[in-house]
Amino acid sequence: MRRVMVLTGGGDCPGLNAVIRAVVKRAAQENDWEVLGSIKAFDGILNEPTELMILDEEKVAGIHYQGGTIIQTTNKGGPFAWPVKKKDGSWEYVDRSDEMIRKIQYLGIDAVISIGGDGSQRISQKLFEKGLNIIGVPKTIDNDLSATDSTFGFQTAIQVGTEAVDKLVTTAASHNRVFILEVMGRDAGWIALNAAVAGGAEICLIPEIPYDINIILSKINARFHRGKGFAIIVAAEGARPKEGTVVAHASNEVGYENVRLGGLGFKLEDDLKKAGCEHDVRVTVLGHLQRGGVPIAYDRVLATQFGVKAMEMVLNGEYGRMVSYSHPYITSVTLKDAIQKPNLVTLDTALIKTARGVGISFGEDLIALEE
Amino acid sequence: MRRVMVLTGGGDCPGLNAVIRAVVKRAAQENDWEVLGSIKAFDGILNEPTELMILDEEKVAGIHYQGGTIIQTTNKGGPFAWPVKKKDGSWEYVDRSDEMIRKIQYLGIDAVISIGGDGSQRISQKLFEKGLNIIGVPKTIDNDLSATDSTFGFQTAIQVGTEAVDKLVTTAASHNRVFILEVMGRDAGWIALNAAVAGGAEICLIPEIPYDINIILSKINARFHRGKGFAIIVAAEGARPKEGTVVAHASNEVGYENVRLGGLGFKLEDDLKKAGCEHDVRVTVLGHLQRGGVPIAYDRVLATQFGVKAMEMVLNGEYGRMVSYSHPYITSVTLKDAIQKPNLVTLDTALIKTARGVGISFGEDLIALEE
Amino acid sequence: MRRVMVLTGGGDCPGLNAVIRAVVKRAAQENDWEVLGSIKAFDGILNEPTELMILDEEKVAGIHYQGGTIIQTTNKGGPFAWPVKKKDGSWEYVDRSDEMIRKIQYLGIDAVISIGGDGSQRISQKLFEKGLNIIGVPKTIDNDLSATDSTFGFQTAIQVGTEAVDKLVTTAASHNRVFILEVMGRDAGWIALNAAVAGGAEICLIPEIPYDINIILSKINARFHRGKGFAIIVAAEGARPKEGTVVAHASNEVGYENVRLGGLGFKLEDDLKKAGCEHDVRVTVLGHLQRGGVPIAYDRVLATQFGVKAMEMVLNGEYGRMVSYSHPYITSVTLKDAIQKPNLVTLDTALIKTARGVGISFGEDLIALEE
Amino acid sequence: MRRVMVLTGGGDCPGLNAVIRAVVKRAAQENDWEVLGSIKAFDGILNEPTELMILDEEKVAGIHYQGGTIIQTTNKGGPFAWPVKKKDGSWEYVDRSDEMIRKIQYLGIDAVISIGGDGSQRISQKLFEKGLNIIGVPKTIDNDLSATDSTFGFQTAIQVGTEAVDKLVTTAASHNRVFILEVMGRDAGWIALNAAVAGGAEICLIPEIPYDINIILSKINARFHRGKGFAIIVAAEGARPKEGTVVAHASNEVGYENVRLGGLGFKLEDDLKKAGCEHDVRVTVLGHLQRGGVPIAYDRVLATQFGVKAMEMVLNGEYGRMVSYSHPYITSVTLKDAIQKPNLVTLDTALIKTARGVGISFGEDLIALEE
Repeated sequence: MRRVMVLTGGGDCPGLNAVIRAVVKRAAQENDWEVLGSIKAFDGILNEPTELMILDEEKVAGIHYQGGTIIQTTNKGGPFAWPVKKKDGSWEYVDRSDEMIRKIQYLGIDAVISIGGDGSQRISQKLFEKGLNIIGVPKTIDNDLSATDSTFGFQTAIQVGTEAVDKLVTTAASHNRVFILEVMGRDAGWIALNAAVAGGAEICLIPEIPYDINIILSKINARFHRGKGFAIIVAAEGARPKEGTVVAHASNEVGYENVRLGGLGFKLEDDLKKAGCEHDVRVTVLGHLQRGGVPIAYDRVLATQFGVKAMEMVLNGEYGRMVSYSHPYITSVTLKDAIQKPNLVTLDTALIKTARGVGISFGEDLIALEE
Repeated sequence: MRRVMVLTGGGDCPGLNAVIRAVVKRAAQENDWEVLGSIKAFDGILNEPTELMILDEEKVAGIHYQGGTIIQTTNKGGPFAWPVKKKDGSWEYVDRSDEMIRKIQYLGIDAVISIGGDGSQRISQKLFEKGLNIIGVPKTIDNDLSATDSTFGFQTAIQVGTEAVDKLVTTAASHNRVFILEVMGRDAGWIALNAAVAGGAEICLIPEIPYDINIILSKINARFHRGKGFAIIVAAEGARPKEGTVVAHASNEVGYENVRLGGLGFKLEDDLKKAGCEHDVRVTVLGHLQRGGVPIAYDRVLATQFGVKAMEMVLNGEYGRMVSYSHPYITSVTLKDAIQKPNLVTLDTALIKTARGVGISFGEDLIALEE
Repeated sequence: MRRVMVLTGGGDCPGLNAVIRAVVKRAAQENDWEVLGSIKAFDGILNEPTELMILDEEKVAGIHYQGGTIIQTTNKGGPFAWPVKKKDGSWEYVDRSDEMIRKIQYLGIDAVISIGGDGSQRISQKLFEKGLNIIGVPKTIDNDLSATDSTFGFQTAIQVGTEAVDKLVTTAASHNRVFILEVMGRDAGWIALNAAVAGGAEICLIPEIPYDINIILSKINARFHRGKGFAIIVAAEGARPKEGTVVAHASNEVGYENVRLGGLGFKLEDDLKKAGCEHDVRVTVLGHLQRGGVPIAYDRVLATQFGVKAMEMVLNGEYGRMVSYSHPYITSVTLKDAIQKPNLVTLDTALIKTARGVGISFGEDLIALEE
Repeated sequence: MRRVMVLTGGGDCPGLNAVIRAVVKRAAQENDWEVLGSIKAFDGILNEPTELMILDEEKVAGIHYQGGTIIQTTNKGGPFAWPVKKKDGSWEYVDRSDEMIRKIQYLGIDAVISIGGDGSQRISQKLFEKGLNIIGVPKTIDNDLSATDSTFGFQTAIQVGTEAVDKLVTTAASHNRVFILEVMGRDAGWIALNAAVAGGAEICLIPEIPYDINIILSKINARFHRGKGFAIIVAAEGARPKEGTVVAHASNEVGYENVRLGGLGFKLEDDLKKAGCEHDVRVTVLGHLQRGGVPIAYDRVLATQFGVKAMEMVLNGEYGRMVSYSHPYITSVTLKDAIQKPNLVTLDTALIKTARGVGISFGEDLIALEE
């Protein structure tokens, strides 16, 4: 009996379970492969006692339409930087990679499939360099990976954001109000950008394009002036004002550096008021709603493709590579290539042009930017 | 040609359009009735020029599955307390009720259907006492009216809250976290209570039952101790701590009196941390998502029942009354009876007992309460 | 340790799992009660070997938002008419009730909670008369029980039907077509009636009101004549034509007596064509879509109320009774009273009047009917 | 003032309104362009009197989340084969293309954007050859166009199909049954294939792979034998049995050649019974549910991209071309290239391999096929 170990690392993402199910279903077509899940990424294999779950067809039945991951996940540092609490209460980070590889061999595990984001894939590459038979499956709800056309979870997050805009539009139109919808996106604005276009928002704020609060306000005022009784702002949590464009904050006030997840929306409300906004403002913070729930069909199909491909790469011994989608093929790239520069929104992005084409403002001085 | 004027007042609510459509469809079955909509509650009739919209079958086609209200709404004071800006910038409240009644007569309007909450129905009663042919249709998303078995919009708000809990549960189970979901409810906790039961939350905080932060924390800790890796708190925006149970706040901090819509969740997060919570906490603020969107079937049916009944009461001249649902009948009560004490959650409420039966905590000292 | 056995009988229904979960959660608050689930209604207890599942909090975690029932269900005859295959291949129905009661006692089971429809409750009453400590929980997706204000599953079925109407309306309006939506309802038309009102259909066909195909056609033609480019018919599967109103069918054709589930819609299409309908007709058959999927919040709340109440009745020894909802209370009625005449739509039903008030036709000759 | 005329042809498709809105919003950014919509494809311009609708920002506000098309559509033949009823009642097809081009010039229309499928684009190419300034926007819910990576509407149809599978799975697991879900797809099986993978069906029948009823049955029996109490079949409406694999039908029976939309599912049920299937079979026919309703975010984004691009092509005078998506770019191809061979499922399709990888059967003899 040969063994493949699967693990899920980083933030959870709709579609993880569909990947796991596909790996197990594909492995079940071979007579001599068993699938083990390591609980909470590398924790399951590193912890004493080891926490591994045998994954058979029974265990994965029906999990493809469940959000989350049945083998759990964690943001802990991984085998190269394993946190250990010292006697004085401080933390030390220990390299347990050699120990882990030995343990994997000892347990008769022939290959590892690591489903995770940028950080996880960097770990995978380092483990591969140390001789581990490892295969990566990309996972990023933010779609910020250049090595694949798209990743699962992303479309579900957009869908949740878009349905929120749809709901706000109907209530907004009955009153005269400004609505701020805060969505995910610390560094990449893809979710906000797509939800703004799909939902038909007026203003979209993303980390890649610093905003000017006065431009936002003048856009809102112009809209109300034209007789439109509401305006919708979709803001990525990582969006920030251009330096010098917001009123200085009092010393005892929270500055942008301390804005927490879910805090940008309320900060923006305050800044709009300070800048002179006379309209009622209402804030909705989606938070983890975007990670949870049933993955949409698109993400389940893509995740299933990734899972089957990963298992077939195990069967073919194609290690040191990450599964990748290059329309219309499911293919792979080396882990080394996979962890290159992230995929961020730029002013050249096709969807930015489309967004402007339907009149969406990014709160910036267009002329200044394009010069 | 006889005329009935319809108006919608107060916060918007899923199902308003279905009421309007039903009034118009029922009126269209008579040969001699025309329906007019007054834009933004009483503003439409009081403004100069008058803003009335003729509502025929064409206008209301398909609006029953749209949230909001096609004749808009407002929270302004109404004809007995019409706000007028004085020269010095301050506001004065003027009684324009007589003027309005004259205007209604002058325009040949035979009857008025006022769809609105508690405040609107009080105005309706006063207008009825002054001789206006007026009929009330109850509207409260919070379900805080005792004069009717239920009101439209309420079930849609619960559904939105429940779907949010569902999404949080799947993501919560993949990490070790506490999730706070802030839902509507300034004075009445019905939405939070129903969403907590339907979604299977662990803790439910409502305005009617002041909470003790330490009891919440010990409940969370007990759950994590039992190996459950997450806890969900559904909190109504109006929930508040029992006096003396939260750590005193620094002078420059926002106190509870200043917590805005969407602020309770973050306040609670802070208080949990101060009380010693060691788990990650994540906050989602639904805000106006609960008012918007497509009304669920239950609310559309109830709203349609109310609309047809209201028009039939006009045809029968049953003025001074409010439409009411008394299962299985659609009936009516006098406006005077309708504006009695609100329907709030009490310790005797059947659903409170059910909630406790499935282990939901209200953050209170059960023994102290029941003594 | 005391034991309560739970079983689910008849067709499945959204909310069954929420009842089971509530029973288990409530029982877990006592120190001395264990819950067992009998697999496939009475089969689990009657089969050899016995198929009972211990239901603890772990087992029922999160099941409230799953459709179906984790202890499965069956339409088999039950202990009084247990089907046994004879040597010649024919079936014999045997009374195994005494044997079953002995087995229940032998296994130390103190009480039984039977969640099921009309048929199940009749069996419960007979078992109670024989001395079994049994409590009924009503379950009928068709809402055809008079002994309770409403039952879980019903609102979910209406919601699924209504969302289908919504989808058809948008596509219908782009073409010139007649759409037939076949929904559940063999004897009772409640689902069709509610979905027609909530969705805004033009025609609603239910078992309680035989239709005249020519009246349907003239209604359709009148609508197209007024410039409305489509018409939606919501038809319960059990709706049938008034005698003599459809063209005689050729001898080799399927008659109405043989129309299967999902067949009425296509039959109706044929009859419309034969009666001279010149418009394109499209048929959608929802079938079991209405039983499946995530129960809406309303049904989960009601199911949870029923489950907690049932377990409390066990604790109080209130046997021979069925849980019942009598707004705003969760109460109970004797099983004897529960199995009285069904709750069918009548011409006096409030919602029939509402439906007519918004112009919905039931394909009947109104004057003839009311005379 | 310059004018662009927009029209939508063929079956309706979720996202059509989002294209129209994007064209109008983009045109509104120029000072000198007006958008006109021709009602029901070419009918609007060819009919007397002309039926053109001025499309301004007011008209298209909020239409992006509505299914259907506000300018309606038709399957009529178009300007080269305009149907005219002759005196004897038969139909004649007349070439009115020259007349139409003259009319377009006479009305001061500078360019035409034709949103439609294969047939529409062939007409566009012929009109372009005659000198008309025309641009195509691809529209096919079946995704059967090779000239673009994907088309709007397709993902919404998959989502509807997948949600149906999800619902059936929960109800199926409570009984022992076979469920047949009939989805769209006369010639291309993409929707069925994607919904089967996303929903986790056991069997998928598509037009491109003729099925053997006995292989389907043995697959079902094997599954029940393994203790799985249900099986789900997703069947495209155009799926057909391999010759000689179904029992000969009696002379008075409907043969496959006459199976109507919505009829394959029931035919399949009959054939399964005849082949010896002993399990209960239930059929759901989605029909037009897949065309209707709110487009998912993915389709709205793609449709908006297409609309903005089409208008920019008008501004640049890039006529005779069709908008196309070539990830990550929105680009264009010549109309001539666009109407090449259709995009059908083949045995080499990546998703077919994935489907087999998770154990989905296509009802075929795998060995025979691959030899």
